Amino acid sequence: MYALGIDFGTLSGRALLVDADTGQEIADAVHPYANAVIEKCVPGTKTPLEPDTALQDPKDYLDVLRIAVPAVLAKAKVKPAQIIGIGTDFTASSPLPCFSDGTPVCFDPKLRNNPHSWVKLWKHHAAQPEADYINEIARQRGEHFATVYGGKYSSEWFFSKLLQVVHDAPEVYDAMDRWIEAADWIVWQLTGQEKRSVCAAGYKAMWVYPYGEGWAYPSPEFFRALHPKLETVYGKLSMELHQLGARAGGLTAEMAKLMGLNPGTPVAIGNVDAHAAVPACTVTSPGKLVNIMGTSTCSMVLGNGFQPVEGMCGAVANGIIPGLWGFEAGQSCVGDSFGWFVQNACPRHALGLPENADEGSVHARLVELASASKPGRSGLLALDWWNGNRSVLVDTTLSGCIFGLNLATTPAEIYRAMIESTAFGQLRIIQSFEEHGVPIDEVFACGGLAIKNDFLMQIYADVINRPISIADSKQTCALGAAMHGAVAAGYHANISVAAAKMARVREKRFEPIGANTSIYNQLYSEYCRLHDLLGRHQIPTMRTLKKLRAV
Amino acid sequence: MYALGIDFGTLSGRALLVDADTGQEIADAVHPYANAVIEKCVPGTKTPLEPDTALQDPKDYLDVLRIAVPAVLAKAKVKPAQIIGIGTDFTASSPLPCFSDGTPVCFDPKLRNNPHSWVKLWKHHAAQPEADYINEIARQRGEHFATVYGGKYSSEWFFSKLLQVVHDAPEVYDAMDRWIEAADWIVWQLTGQEKRSVCAAGYKAMWVYPYGEGWAYPSPEFFRALHPKLETVYGKLSMELHQLGARAGGLTAEMAKLMGLNPGTPVAIGNVDAHAAVPACTVTSPGKLVNIMGTSTCSMVLGNGFQPVEGMCGAVANGIIPGLWGFEAGQSCVGDSFGWFVQNACPRHALGLPENADEGSVHARLVELASASKPGRSGLLALDWWNGNRSVLVDTTLSGCIFGLNLATTPAEIYRAMIESTAFGQLRIIQSFEEHGVPIDEVFACGGLAIKNDFLMQIYADVINRPISIADSKQTCALGAAMHGAVAAGYHANISVAAAKMARVREKRFEPIGANTSIYNQLYSEYCRLHDLLGRHQIPTMRTLKKLRAV
Repeated sequence: MYALGIDFGTLSGRALLVDADTGQEIADAVHPYANAVIEKCVPGTKTPLEPDTALQDPKDYLDVLRIAVPAVLAKAKVKPAQIIGIGTDFTASSPLPCFSDGTPVCFDPKLRNNPHSWVKLWKHHAAQPEADYINEIARQRGEHFATVYGGKYSSEWFFSKLLQVVHDAPEVYDAMDRWIEAADWIVWQLTGQEKRSVCAAGYKAMWVYPYGEGWAYPSPEFFRALHPKLETVYGKLSMELHQLGARAGGLTAEMAKLMGLNPGTPVAIGNVDAHAAVPACTVTSPGKLVNIMGTSTCSMVLGNGFQPVEGMCGAVANGIIPGLWGFEAGQSCVGDSFGWFVQNACPRHALGLPENADEGSVHARLVELASASKPGRSGLLALDWWNGNRSVLVDTTLSGCIFGLNLATTPAEIYRAMIESTAFGQLRIIQSFEEHGVPIDEVFACGGLAIKNDFLMQIYADVINRPISIADSKQTCALGAAMHGAVAAGYHANISVAAAKMARVREKRFEPIGANTSIYNQLYSEYCRLHDLLGRHQIPTMRTLKKLRAV
Repeated sequence: MYALGIDFGTLSGRALLVDADTGQEIADAVHPYANAVIEKCVPGTKTPLEPDTALQDPKDYLDVLRIAVPAVLAKAKVKPAQIIGIGTDFTASSPLPCFSDGTPVCFDPKLRNNPHSWVKLWKHHAAQPEADYINEIARQRGEHFATVYGGKYSSEWFFSKLLQVVHDAPEVYDAMDRWIEAADWIVWQLTGQEKRSVCAAGYKAMWVYPYGEGWAYPSPEFFRALHPKLETVYGKLSMELHQLGARAGGLTAEMAKLMGLNPGTPVAIGNVDAHAAVPACTVTSPGKLVNIMGTSTCSMVLGNGFQPVEGMCGAVANGIIPGLWGFEAGQSCVGDSFGWFVQNACPRHALGLPENADEGSVHARLVELASASKPGRSGLLALDWWNGNRSVLVDTTLSGCIFGLNLATTPAEIYRAMIESTAFGQLRIIQSFEEHGVPIDEVFACGGLAIKNDFLMQIYADVINRPISIADSKQTCALGAAMHGAVAAGYHANISVAAAKMARVREKRFEPIGANTSIYNQLYSEYCRLHDLLGRHQIPTMRTLKKLRAV
């Protein structure tokens, strides 16, 4: 029997068919979104969008169901009756406004030209003023959610984006019946049931434990302080939230027809992509950190109870695995900074490569040259803040630094120092968890960097002085979604059983090399010193640079 | 009537014929040294030289006299009788061993194969262990010269190199009758008189004021502490030293024949290249800083009395202009760091240039792009220590730093920040002089960067908030040498008169732009904070990086 995982990413959606007993990946199909990321104009108009806008078209999500799902079934030569259950995962926070029947507001011809009728993708950053305002009001009022979100609610998240709609398009706010995560909206489309997940609500939508007598959204007084219109926001949300792996419902007849599946096929409650990856890395118990490593790194760890960890992105009971607290932290710039380096600071001729060498060859050559060196030899140390700091310091105004340059410094040495700096950033997060009572003994990694870059992973193992296991799957999010589908179908008793059956890591894991760790420990002491000095503004350098930049 | 200036540089020698009344540059001729900088093997052997060795062949200096001088006379169609006097200038400290008649030890077939028989060029850095030892012994004994040399005697200087000969080639030490600066040796060759200059002795050879009853080399006890053989070093030196602009003697018959000049033509006491440039920039009075700006920057200022300025390279009465104290400071890496950037950190494609674009086009394009920005806009700040810090901190173990990098940072922004950092370094030196009682009201500049890079000079004027005048001559060292030749001939009463007649600056000077200065003041505060924090080892980061590099 088979489970189907459907992973909705930033540029495309992927359907993955998995053997529900062994986890074997039978076939997959990718459908790129026709409207991709909408940044210039609303489709069909020529009105320019304001800077930092990033929208999506919900029709693209439906097209993934219509095109990728039948494609994967055809490829695998599997019959609808062999599909025991469906799970989904989505980028987050990517909310959209819709009407009471689930129709997106942007499908309404009268409101279609308004950018605020569309999905605000996770990387839509135009709501920064709203996030700043939310944090200011929360600070004044001593709202509890601040402690859960590392002291800062992000411009990427659910209510920052909603407040932007209230400010910039009150007519859209008034017209919408629901404001919902795309992760929950897609489940509503599949099943006809609006059943929202604890995961998105807890990590993105201020649905936190320490309020009043249990889990809750913030009070009406808080919302009124943000904007009078928001006092009635509860009517556009859902107060009942559901556990991951629970059955949201069965596939509707209409959807079953669209996707070429049987009506009534069980569908799991919606999930967030990074969180779906955790059990797909075999992790369903405390003490294990899972890193999803790509342009940025998302770090997740399970614990037995709430701990206020400095600068984490969120902490939600049952938020990743039912029965455990799920803690999330992250580094906002990992692969992105290596990409910046190759684009902006690495002359091809200095590597003995032609100018038209593709970026892959440049990375490969840099790794080759950097591998020939040893920890500490370059005399370089970097702070990995090319895109601010997401965890521990939680400060988007911070910027990257390099120490120790000299006339003999080579591009490969800088590249290596930048990789090392992200590993130091990772260790800083691990230490923050451990200092606050969330132990981390083992590390697991998945995502593009983890499966492709052995050189980087060995540096990480050496720096954090812990073994690192790599997920066996190249599409851990989709695999995790399929696993939740199998649980929702009742095929496996719970996600731990599903993980034992369906998830695995590679046999070869990265073990720390003692001699390297001992050098890195010394560099890490300096990293921490500079991290606090510059990042906690013990000296005002970073603030001054930021201020002058904005003049 | 004409004066002849002969400038001995690192790779070539230049003869410049100047109108002694107007300073007009009539003609020049350059002769590249056949053996250039000897770094691999002693000429004629295949024995590899140890790392950091940089030797020269004194025969190349004689070839400049034999070839470039007749060439310049022929070019200018000037007769020997029209040459009123000759001045020379040399790199320093570039000492060599010779016999009592002035013959270099390396001309002796028996000792020719020994690398220590040759000239040790200024940039020979293999005597670092000897310099370290000298500084250690000086510290233990409380020797006065340390205060004059900013607390550190350099590996590039006269006695570090001599101690290396004593250690590594005692037979050469025993064979030599004299150990002499090439600047003084060339005058000996021209005139048959060994008359050494106060300038080289004062700035490079521990001939300092505060000893005993007046100017003197250190005591026999000090030299004995360095090495027993050195107790008798005075016999290989010259205890009598001569003022700049004094007449060392007349051209010998043999030299006159070699050069195509008249016997008896007056020859001035030898000079150091950077110091010769000061009067050639019109500067012969206190309160004016002269910068010679190229791969590194040499900064000189005149004062009325001795002041112990923190971290200066040297202070010598009459050392630049007779009657005044001459203070020297410097930045060890200016143009060199921009060169490093273009070679190692600036991809051509990011500038819209083809990979095979020559370095000149890359610099031009960087200046074009960087000019479009404004102070502070990039959010970047750098510490200019790519080759350590020569003045104020006097610490070769320091290395460069960049703060404020982000995913939108461009190569031109980094280039501009590196230029700004050298300007901040320059201001730090100016402030050190002023804080210690040596006022600086006006700044003059010469050398490649000053005459070619208006963008850079405007940044300097803005940062240091003082007008900067640029020397009108492209070869200020050779012009200054010719001016000293005219003084030695008695044609001008002294160097001030010669400067009034023969030297000039460009009409257009760089004036500080107030709005830029006000932003740069804020960046400079951060520069100073980080300069002290990292450069004075208030935090141990730089020491740790250096230590790990050497492991």
